Amino acid sequence: MNKKLIISLAFLFLLAGSNSVKAQLIKGPQIDRQNRATFHVYAPGADSVKVINLSDEAAMGAKEYNMTEDTSGNWAVTTKSCRAGFHYYEISVDGFRAADPSAPAYFGWGKWTSGLEVPGDEDFYLPQEVPHGEVHYHWYHSDVTGTYRKCLVYTPPGYEENKSERYPVLYLQHGAGESELAWTMQGKVNFIMDNLLEEGNVKPMIIVMDNGYAARPGSENPGRPYGRDNAFENLVVHELVPMIDASYRTFTDADHRAIAGLSMGAGQALSIGLGHPGLFHWIGAFSGGGRRFDPQTSYGGVFANPQTFNGTYRLLWLGCGYADNGYEHVEAFHQALDKAVIENTWYEGPGSHEWQVWRHHILAFSQLLFR
Amino acid sequence: MNKKLIISLAFLFLLAGSNSVKAQLIKGPQIDRQNRATFHVYAPGADSVKVINLSDEAAMGAKEYNMTEDTSGNWAVTTKSCRAGFHYYEISVDGFRAADPSAPAYFGWGKWTSGLEVPGDEDFYLPQEVPHGEVHYHWYHSDVTGTYRKCLVYTPPGYEENKSERYPVLYLQHGAGESELAWTMQGKVNFIMDNLLEEGNVKPMIIVMDNGYAARPGSENPGRPYGRDNAFENLVVHELVPMIDASYRTFTDADHRAIAGLSMGAGQALSIGLGHPGLFHWIGAFSGGGRRFDPQTSYGGVFANPQTFNGTYRLLWLGCGYADNGYEHVEAFHQALDKAVIENTWYEGPGSHEWQVWRHHILAFSQLLFR
Repeated sequence: MNKKLIISLAFLFLLAGSNSVKAQLIKGPQIDRQNRATFHVYAPGADSVKVINLSDEAAMGAKEYNMTEDTSGNWAVTTKSCRAGFHYYEISVDGFRAADPSAPAYFGWGKWTSGLEVPGDEDFYLPQEVPHGEVHYHWYHSDVTGTYRKCLVYTPPGYEENKSERYPVLYLQHGAGESELAWTMQGKVNFIMDNLLEEGNVKPMIIVMDNGYAARPGSENPGRPYGRDNAFENLVVHELVPMIDASYRTFTDADHRAIAGLSMGAGQALSIGLGHPGLFHWIGAFSGGGRRFDPQTSYGGVFANPQTFNGTYRLLWLGCGYADNGYEHVEAFHQALDKAVIENTWYEGPGSHEWQVWRHHILAFSQLLFR
Repeated sequence: MNKKLIISLAFLFLLAGSNSVKAQLIKGPQIDRQNRATFHVYAPGADSVKVINLSDEAAMGAKEYNMTEDTSGNWAVTTKSCRAGFHYYEISVDGFRAADPSAPAYFGWGKWTSGLEVPGDEDFYLPQEVPHGEVHYHWYHSDVTGTYRKCLVYTPPGYEENKSERYPVLYLQHGAGESELAWTMQGKVNFIMDNLLEEGNVKPMIIVMDNGYAARPGSENPGRPYGRDNAFENLVVHELVPMIDASYRTFTDADHRAIAGLSMGAGQALSIGLGHPGLFHWIGAFSGGGRRFDPQTSYGGVFANPQTFNGTYRLLWLGCGYADNGYEHVEAFHQALDKAVIENTWYEGPGSHEWQVWRHHILAFSQLLFR
């Protein structure tokens, strides 16, 4: 925020109630027709100001950009052409890394982090002139963690009107360092579903997005997503699923319940989904999971008898971007499943470990669900 | 984020799916029993790092604090005792002002800004072991602005179960530089209502929180909250109210519809509420409104005939904190209304232009509504 804006906002507070107030709210970096982004930062006493691209190099054309200063303390830089999609970035000022004060912030990398949304040819994740579902912020107390938590719940258009209708449920998890907000804020999953529903390409479903970080009271490792104490798994199985089934008009059998996630969430979807065949029959792992895979012993031995597995689960869906650092591991997992005659759906495409890939993953995965 | 965290998060992405992943998520500044806050910032190349208190001096004990550096680029400072409540603040690094990377961010001051939540003796705004209402993120297209917008809608506990029940509606607006998120994120209005309902001290109601910034397509002043073109007023009257009445189980008469707001939102609540006696019969102005008041001509002359006004409106509620820079103006407005024999409810108390005051305002105001 530059001094002019600070002063004008201070005036706003004083002038509240007058008809002459103005406020310039953040708009984010400007992006031109060649998808070059121009960043502006006010840092009058700084020696070095940079834009740090937290995604792969090609996402923003370089891993970092040095900004240049005018005579008034305003720094600016224009990037090379950026790739369509959502890219995390930070501003670095003399070694201090922070979110860009002029841009929207998203919870990622364990904190509020800037995101650059670069437009592309595709509009499947943009809001369209179609009926919109609602995202509910649903608060609950967890006995597992001893804390109040919130999950986000997407209900499709018509949920309020069709009061006798029941819906299948997809539990959808974010990645490491992100939160329950990520699938709507970064992923735009609500718009993706709205658009798919309008085209008749997806079954109406409820989507539950919880926070993948859970720790038992007194735990010294509150950031541990899952581990020996299985806090998150217990929370999902014994608290979240029963609460959702009690609070929303759901179908409550495993044939109408899916679990999926990205990266860390892929690991959670696999371990929780495969660990509870009585709860989940549809599983999606986006850009994660399957390390050190052994078809006889991994995931509690659920794959040891392929016939039993194939007769129980309705969908095991794996996807990864070609440029993802973990691509070869996920691909090897898929190939090992094929070799073990475990039915699975494999999806690969362009992109790295990034939200544009996961938008495509939920687009493809959701259309297969509950059919 | 320090280098160690960046590396560990990078590992998280690579290790997704393993059982050994860890993440340290933000916790905000530490606050001791004397309500002194300790801030930490990593800025290895900086010459000067400060914590900037964006509220009044007493909120955090000083307007700013110089941080001191250890030999590893870690800066820290412990404040004097802070006042209970929510205080906006920023980190300044060599003149660059940004949100604290180690703290939660809230949309305020026209951007994502850090907030320090200092505990106090009161718990009316904290989540308790009571039934929780839901906050709905409701997307809609506005013809007035030509954009997609979202409003937040609080529905009280029992809304989903009591399918034949209808509810009165409070439209509740944020202040300048804030957004539709503020009343839940900063204000905790959902918890305040949950707690009041459990005690039987408030009528169950729906609360609609929209974004007070609206501009017509092509406007060169998108930040203008209201003015000659009355974009926001038109949006509320012709789009928001009808949409809410069509989407939620509301009572649709003015005796069951309130509008209130803080600071800039107080001005909006007054001008929209007083401009539409057929729509709103309950009005709340928190810490704003009433500048250059003339009972004959202000607000379209609605006060010119006190008998008509008093017979039409059910509640005109004004509140302000003693330490608010605008206190004398709001108090003068209240006194002028009294002098003109306009029925109004006056609420004053400790605090400045800050969220702790507005939490008390909604606590007091909401209990009077729809009785």
